[in-house]
Amino acid sequence: MQVTRIKPFFILLMALMLSACAEAAHPNLVITSDNIEQMRAAIDEPGRFKNAFDKQRHMVDELIKHPIVVPVPKDGGGGYTHEQHKKNYQLMYNTGVMYQLTQDKRYADYVRDMLLAYADLYPTLDVHPKRKVKAQNPGKLFWQSLNEAMWLVYTIQAYDLIYDALNSSQIKTIEDNLLKPVALFLSEGQPSTFNKVHNHGTWATAGVGMAGYVMNEPEWVEKSLYDLDKSGKGGFLKQLDILFSPQGYYNEGPYYHRFALLPFVTFARAIENNEPDRAIFQHRNGVLLKAIYAAIDLSYNGLFFPINDAIKSKGTDTIELVHGVAAAYALTNDNRLLDIANQQNQIVLTGDGLKVARALDNNLAQPYQYQSTAFGDGSNGDEGALVVMRSDIDGEQALLFKPASQGLGHGHFDKLTWQFYDRGNEIVSDYGAARFLNVEAKYGGRYLPENESYAKQTVAHNTVVVDETSHFNGDVSVGNANAPTLDFFETTDKGTVSAGSIDTAYAGVQLSRTLALVNLPDLSRTIAIDIFNVIADQAHQLDLPLHYQGQLIDTNFAIEANTDLLKPVGKNQGYQHLWQKGQATPEAGLARVTWLNENGRFYTQTTLTDGTESFIFTQIGANDPNFNLRNEHGFIRRVRGVSQHRFISVLEPHGEYTPSKEFTLNAVSQVSSLEYSEQGSLSLIEVTVEGRQFLVAINGTEDAQANSTEFSYKNHQYNLDDRLGVYVLSNH
Amino acid sequence: MQVTRIKPFFILLMALMLSACAEAAHPNLVITSDNIEQMRAAIDEPGRFKNAFDKQRHMVDELIKHPIVVPVPKDGGGGYTHEQHKKNYQLMYNTGVMYQLTQDKRYADYVRDMLLAYADLYPTLDVHPKRKVKAQNPGKLFWQSLNEAMWLVYTIQAYDLIYDALNSSQIKTIEDNLLKPVALFLSEGQPSTFNKVHNHGTWATAGVGMAGYVMNEPEWVEKSLYDLDKSGKGGFLKQLDILFSPQGYYNEGPYYHRFALLPFVTFARAIENNEPDRAIFQHRNGVLLKAIYAAIDLSYNGLFFPINDAIKSKGTDTIELVHGVAAAYALTNDNRLLDIANQQNQIVLTGDGLKVARALDNNLAQPYQYQSTAFGDGSNGDEGALVVMRSDIDGEQALLFKPASQGLGHGHFDKLTWQFYDRGNEIVSDYGAARFLNVEAKYGGRYLPENESYAKQTVAHNTVVVDETSHFNGDVSVGNANAPTLDFFETTDKGTVSAGSIDTAYAGVQLSRTLALVNLPDLSRTIAIDIFNVIADQAHQLDLPLHYQGQLIDTNFAIEANTDLLKPVGKNQGYQHLWQKGQATPEAGLARVTWLNENGRFYTQTTLTDGTESFIFTQIGANDPNFNLRNEHGFIRRVRGVSQHRFISVLEPHGEYTPSKEFTLNAVSQVSSLEYSEQGSLSLIEVTVEGRQFLVAINGTEDAQANSTEFSYKNHQYNLDDRLGVYVLSNH
Repeated sequence: MQVTRIKPFFILLMALMLSACAEAAHPNLVITSDNIEQMRAAIDEPGRFKNAFDKQRHMVDELIKHPIVVPVPKDGGGGYTHEQHKKNYQLMYNTGVMYQLTQDKRYADYVRDMLLAYADLYPTLDVHPKRKVKAQNPGKLFWQSLNEAMWLVYTIQAYDLIYDALNSSQIKTIEDNLLKPVALFLSEGQPSTFNKVHNHGTWATAGVGMAGYVMNEPEWVEKSLYDLDKSGKGGFLKQLDILFSPQGYYNEGPYYHRFALLPFVTFARAIENNEPDRAIFQHRNGVLLKAIYAAIDLSYNGLFFPINDAIKSKGTDTIELVHGVAAAYALTNDNRLLDIANQQNQIVLTGDGLKVARALDNNLAQPYQYQSTAFGDGSNGDEGALVVMRSDIDGEQALLFKPASQGLGHGHFDKLTWQFYDRGNEIVSDYGAARFLNVEAKYGGRYLPENESYAKQTVAHNTVVVDETSHFNGDVSVGNANAPTLDFFETTDKGTVSAGSIDTAYAGVQLSRTLALVNLPDLSRTIAIDIFNVIADQAHQLDLPLHYQGQLIDTNFAIEANTDLLKPVGKNQGYQHLWQKGQATPEAGLARVTWLNENGRFYTQTTLTDGTESFIFTQIGANDPNFNLRNEHGFIRRVRGVSQHRFISVLEPHGEYTPSKEFTLNAVSQVSSLEYSEQGSLSLIEVTVEGRQFLVAINGTEDAQANSTEFSYKNHQYNLDDRLGVYVLSNH
Repeated sequence: MQVTRIKPFFILLMALMLSACAEAAHPNLVITSDNIEQMRAAIDEPGRFKNAFDKQRHMVDELIKHPIVVPVPKDGGGGYTHEQHKKNYQLMYNTGVMYQLTQDKRYADYVRDMLLAYADLYPTLDVHPKRKVKAQNPGKLFWQSLNEAMWLVYTIQAYDLIYDALNSSQIKTIEDNLLKPVALFLSEGQPSTFNKVHNHGTWATAGVGMAGYVMNEPEWVEKSLYDLDKSGKGGFLKQLDILFSPQGYYNEGPYYHRFALLPFVTFARAIENNEPDRAIFQHRNGVLLKAIYAAIDLSYNGLFFPINDAIKSKGTDTIELVHGVAAAYALTNDNRLLDIANQQNQIVLTGDGLKVARALDNNLAQPYQYQSTAFGDGSNGDEGALVVMRSDIDGEQALLFKPASQGLGHGHFDKLTWQFYDRGNEIVSDYGAARFLNVEAKYGGRYLPENESYAKQTVAHNTVVVDETSHFNGDVSVGNANAPTLDFFETTDKGTVSAGSIDTAYAGVQLSRTLALVNLPDLSRTIAIDIFNVIADQAHQLDLPLHYQGQLIDTNFAIEANTDLLKPVGKNQGYQHLWQKGQATPEAGLARVTWLNENGRFYTQTTLTDGTESFIFTQIGANDPNFNLRNEHGFIRRVRGVSQHRFISVLEPHGEYTPSKEFTLNAVSQVSSLEYSEQGSLSLIEVTVEGRQFLVAINGTEDAQANSTEFSYKNHQYNLDDRLGVYVLSNH
């Protein structure tokens, strides 16, 4: 009101000064003043946003009843002071939001007092007593600076949210004694972490960059974006360029993807709100949005595909992805994202969260369509790929194929492995990480020793092991330097097919695998075809394990069971953890293994064997003195002393076991014949299912433009226009 | 309308004639003409009944498209002709209902034609080719007469439903060539089954009795009710008197209870509709209604407690109990039953079903309150009991205690065993039956050999095994003759306590167990106390196994794990099926075993040991050449060479493991001390939980009128008014 009476010249001057000082409005990071106005209005109306607010307010009110506790740092991860400081930053953030939404000064006072308590404590601190010796990333409040950066990401937002309730002396104390020192400690104080192109660097740059916006330090923003020396060799933009593939795939896999996403989305949102001209969400063809979509696409039944070090219960409802989906929706208005938001069943109290809540209230959600996709791996998308095949013609199915790169220290030695999912369940499974997160009795809640000795080893996965030795002989740096190749990927109405290969997992050994999820015409069902070809320059033992979820029901060959004495299958490289429950060498022809899962569906793997493959039936749990491993089942197909072998099999979901209703349907495999042949680069699989004969043709030509091919099979002519052809041979 | 013009005298005469001829109205078994009128009206209005009708009609329409197939009997249980005849009787019944509801003659014609096809076939049949040699109960359509009786129960109802669409020649053919011969074959033709006080007898008497109502053979009704010689030594009423305890408990346990319930409810409903004066539902203080309630009360989270030979997925939504609940609701108007009907999510197309549907449509359902109850076992309720303890102060919990009798041939040798349930899950578990129902590859779908060699054996349960020998040395007839004693049962706001004992399971050995599910004041949580006392006249080895669902997390003593060689724990009586994964002998004091279940809750059993108890950690699966057994975990507490021992332990649910949200709470047991002492018949358990000291007193006096007692403990005086007392000793 008063401003309008001031002369225009003076207004201009003021605007210039404000701009020069960059004395920003508060709040203006993820949540802006504009957001706040709308959010305040929204909490007065019924709907999802108000519900989320009421719930959060109740929680905050309960927590701030207790006195503020800012303990002197003492404990490592999981310990008391560690957990208390984690709780503190989350509470400061949530209480700050409450202050903005309610304008109740009680909330601002609480955050202020906690910040002042930290401002008292922080100057007295040296590096943390529980830091790792020689590590370059100690924290002060926490044993490692990663947690300190997370503390800053939350705390700087909390500070921003209550800024307008502080007097200048409080501002000076908090900024000078706490926030600026923390930001400097995390940037200039440890360049190797700050400049590192790694998710630890993302947290640091996000925290410091946002501190720059809030405390008017534009240089900090520049350094966060472009490396401390502003060379662009490190920093947030470089992280966006390197850590994601062009399709948005994160090199370590979805479990760490999810973890890394939060600082990316948070800082990007703050950049967008402060400096929209940087067009951060358009950077690299919108890679950050692609990364959010990729996190969704790399899930099944709400859970992330558990490749590499992954805890299996993490999924799309994780808070990181709740923020991610909210940001993506606000930027794209893609109503399919609301389907995911609905499943997440959580509304974040931000401007983006409000937009999602309103859209859900207005029933705008559209079904999210999961696609079959090959996610190129590596910064340029050329270090192999993670392939997802989907089908919904016979219940929701997914086949995951992994000709992807090692994925750094959390990667597993599982080149070309696969997993299969049906009707919401894991069928052919991956162990994931051996870890009980935060369970002190289980190795302090850290990765268990068995994560190294079993879960990472090749035999723990569904891919070929040569001479009982893991890929790259278990050397991460060799693995990181040698990615597999994605040979081809195609998805049509006939199904999805992909092939990948690697010749560096073992010296002198070429591993090539082709997997296809094939729709069978007229039958409204699918089969998964697996052809694993090994060519070596000398004789080896080749093992192809398959880990399944369920109980063995039947085999069409006799198993010599080890009924009263169990020994491990091997000595090292994961084999020492597998009990050998039985063995068999089926005659040439079809070898069937049928199991039943807990949800009452049967699965049969039919192997076309030449009589040289032995089957070893296994259960995880040997050499596990602390009972750390889950005792899951599998079988290993083994050939010995060969320099060439092709493992050929078909996986078939079938039937139903419903004892509660006393019926059992199709408990027996309906694949009654299987033949394999090749014509040049064509692989031909003839398979009889339910008495109907099908011919599946896969064109493996290296010519990327694989054009239409003609071929003759059993005196008939066929045309193949794509990679994958499915032909009905007979229908009786 | 016309009747009103006929003279009263003539009306009386007609009524007398009708009565004399007993030419009953049709239909008039479970479904009556009155029902039909209301049901026809109901399918014109939206609601659950119409929905159920539409669904059923669609199913029937699909099925009657196909030609009628009435094959010559050839196959045994599970085979083609067996399954076809089962399908036929179900389809005839459902199609008959459709005829009555729609009055569409197509349906009646279909049933008529099938009945005529059976009338053609039946006179040509001798006893079934797959009958058991020397068995006294062969069928003609089926290998055993049990199935033939089931056929009659459904078919006589189908016939009744389409009766009014038949001409007299068809009636004659069907009754003379089919229905009467079947009824005679099942009654006069095999007296030993018909008169047997057993569920096979129930099916036979239900079928024959209903045939008597429909075909005007009142003698058949009499014989069905009172034995072929009408002595009352056998027959339906005797079955009601003997097979259920006064509380409605069925001697074989809930799994077979459910199976037996259908013919009881069906025939009783037909009796009620035809001869209400028999007051069948009031018989023996309403035992049939009590039996329906008992079936509900013997479930947890919708599934029956799996004692004896039970397949675990059977629960209250089984069709037998859908009929049972409908009948019970129609008779009682108890709106709590609607809670169960709601969970069943299935409406039967009967008059009773309509009543349930309407009540549900009108939102009359009240929560069903599960109570802590001791179900007396045996005809007089004095052959032990099955005890259910419930608590809902910390999530829904149930403790099942089994001082019940053997339960005939499907009974397990598990006297005084227990099971524990928490938050919807099995925690301390029973194996149930070893069987894959109808899965041909698994021993033809029958009970597996491992049902005898493992599942029935004592070591497969959570009760004491003496000298590695099962109770009664595994002899069913000895078991049937020797029930345990229920020493006491009490439930108050302090919790529930019960004790049972048996001195016939082993010669010269007295087994006594006291179990209590105790509410801890102020903590809003429970603990389960288990005191198992063994007194023998000479030295023995005593084993107390505990089978748990989940993964071992921690023990407070070192386990010597068998890491690279596994052997079975023993040679016989079930021990040969347990791999010995490790062993330990904790020092005197508290020995803790903590496990984590799949739903992220921790459980700790704390044993008070004098240092003589060894712990043997086991996994099921040894000597199982066909991989028939589930590989579940357990541990056995063992003492050797003792004539007296008291096993004392506390089970404590605690904490939460939620890796998806990255938090773990209270993974460590909060029971920090445990002391046990006795004063006369008083057992005193002092336990510290979350730092608070409690004293639990259990008065085990044989005086049933156990009046208030005074006692002194650590220099304080206490009053105990009931069996169970819980006192807070300190609160810091």
